[in-house]
Amino acid sequence: MQKNLIIASTSTLYGGGYLEYLIPELEKHFADCQSILFIPYARPGGMTHDDYTARVKTAFAPLGKTVTGLHEFEDPVQAVREAEAIFTGGGNTFLLVTQLYKYKVMGVLAEVVKNGTPYLGSSAGSNITGLTMQTTNDMPIIYPPDFRTLGLIPFNLNPHYLDADMQSKHMGETRETRIKEFHQFNTVPVLGLREGSWLEVKGDQITLKGNLSARLFRQGKDAEELETGSDLSWIK
Amino acid sequence: MQKNLIIASTSTLYGGGYLEYLIPELEKHFADCQSILFIPYARPGGMTHDDYTARVKTAFAPLGKTVTGLHEFEDPVQAVREAEAIFTGGGNTFLLVTQLYKYKVMGVLAEVVKNGTPYLGSSAGSNITGLTMQTTNDMPIIYPPDFRTLGLIPFNLNPHYLDADMQSKHMGETRETRIKEFHQFNTVPVLGLREGSWLEVKGDQITLKGNLSARLFRQGKDAEELETGSDLSWIK
Repeated sequence: MQKNLIIASTSTLYGGGYLEYLIPELEKHFADCQSILFIPYARPGGMTHDDYTARVKTAFAPLGKTVTGLHEFEDPVQAVREAEAIFTGGGNTFLLVTQLYKYKVMGVLAEVVKNGTPYLGSSAGSNITGLTMQTTNDMPIIYPPDFRTLGLIPFNLNPHYLDADMQSKHMGETRETRIKEFHQFNTVPVLGLREGSWLEVKGDQITLKGNLSARLFRQGKDAEELETGSDLSWIK
Repeated sequence: MQKNLIIASTSTLYGGGYLEYLIPELEKHFADCQSILFIPYARPGGMTHDDYTARVKTAFAPLGKTVTGLHEFEDPVQAVREAEAIFTGGGNTFLLVTQLYKYKVMGVLAEVVKNGTPYLGSSAGSNITGLTMQTTNDMPIIYPPDFRTLGLIPFNLNPHYLDADMQSKHMGETRETRIKEFHQFNTVPVLGLREGSWLEVKGDQITLKGNLSARLFRQGKDAEELETGSDLSWIK
């Protein structure tokens, strides 16, 4: 079986419900699965893993899918190996990556998704599909053993990508400046994925979906806008 | 000699020159020094260490101070030990911390500043005066060997602190949300220091300076606004 991923910038659009804008896509994406394994590890609190999983259950109930949280299994590696489909939700990427290494799930997760287990990521859960987590927007609230992630696509992502606010008097770095700083030390391309955009990955084919363009940053090159519907399979 | 620090949220205010708003303070702060050792390590590129140091030389020239970059010394540990005064500039905190550990400067820097070498930090150079770098806004462009920093004050800082924009339709986390996430795993208090604010540290006395209030976050407590002029020595 071939790789089959939806990699979304965000779970929720302003004014919309959880995963609401993606539901028509998810119906197709998970058409052949009855059950989805949910990875709640990115959530740093405010909401328990049980509550986070309950929210996902509610979102998938109209599609007739059962959802189980990875934290409910005694053997998370086996749970990932046996999953029909997997969804990793958003939160803090430093925490998510730390937990994936702690529970020794990083390797097996990459393996099963490469071998065709349908995958959905949002925000932090999308960040980890890239080569490293080094273009996250999140705060380093915990020290991960490694910044390398799943490598399911041959570049990095910046979810929730934000254009610079030209009216702002704030002197902190813009998102574009931060990504350019990344390229002082790293050759990995970075795709800035705006809220409402997602990547559809089918085997080696990567396509930009949603209504918006995405912004591609490559070392030593000017940033460029890629229109929705673009084939992104050439980026590496 | 007692600790003597100026810890500034930013080097530059909107529409102002480099360090311009701080010059009257710096004249007093560095009154007894002829020379300042500048640590340019946070700068990830776009500007060389030489160019960054030249900018600092220009800023301090009207005060009659000579400025030398730490990168110009063969033995950076000795340079820190012998410095009359030290300024660490802004850039990327992950890079700054990585370099300070690489050149084995973290320990000696904490030691000399504890023993009275006057210190100025801005942005990343202020971040490192806290207990850890875990409340930085920067992107993890490089993997530091440790998140622990100088511990010159008994709490953490969030420089360039930004209030939530209530008009925004962006679904990424606000700064306050990120700091609350930090407190799910860490008991260290965090001071959100707005651009134009700085801390004056004289021995164990810590005072908030500038025209603005600062926002204090503590685990399990509501965030609170502290007025300028406040004694912050009680925070730990």
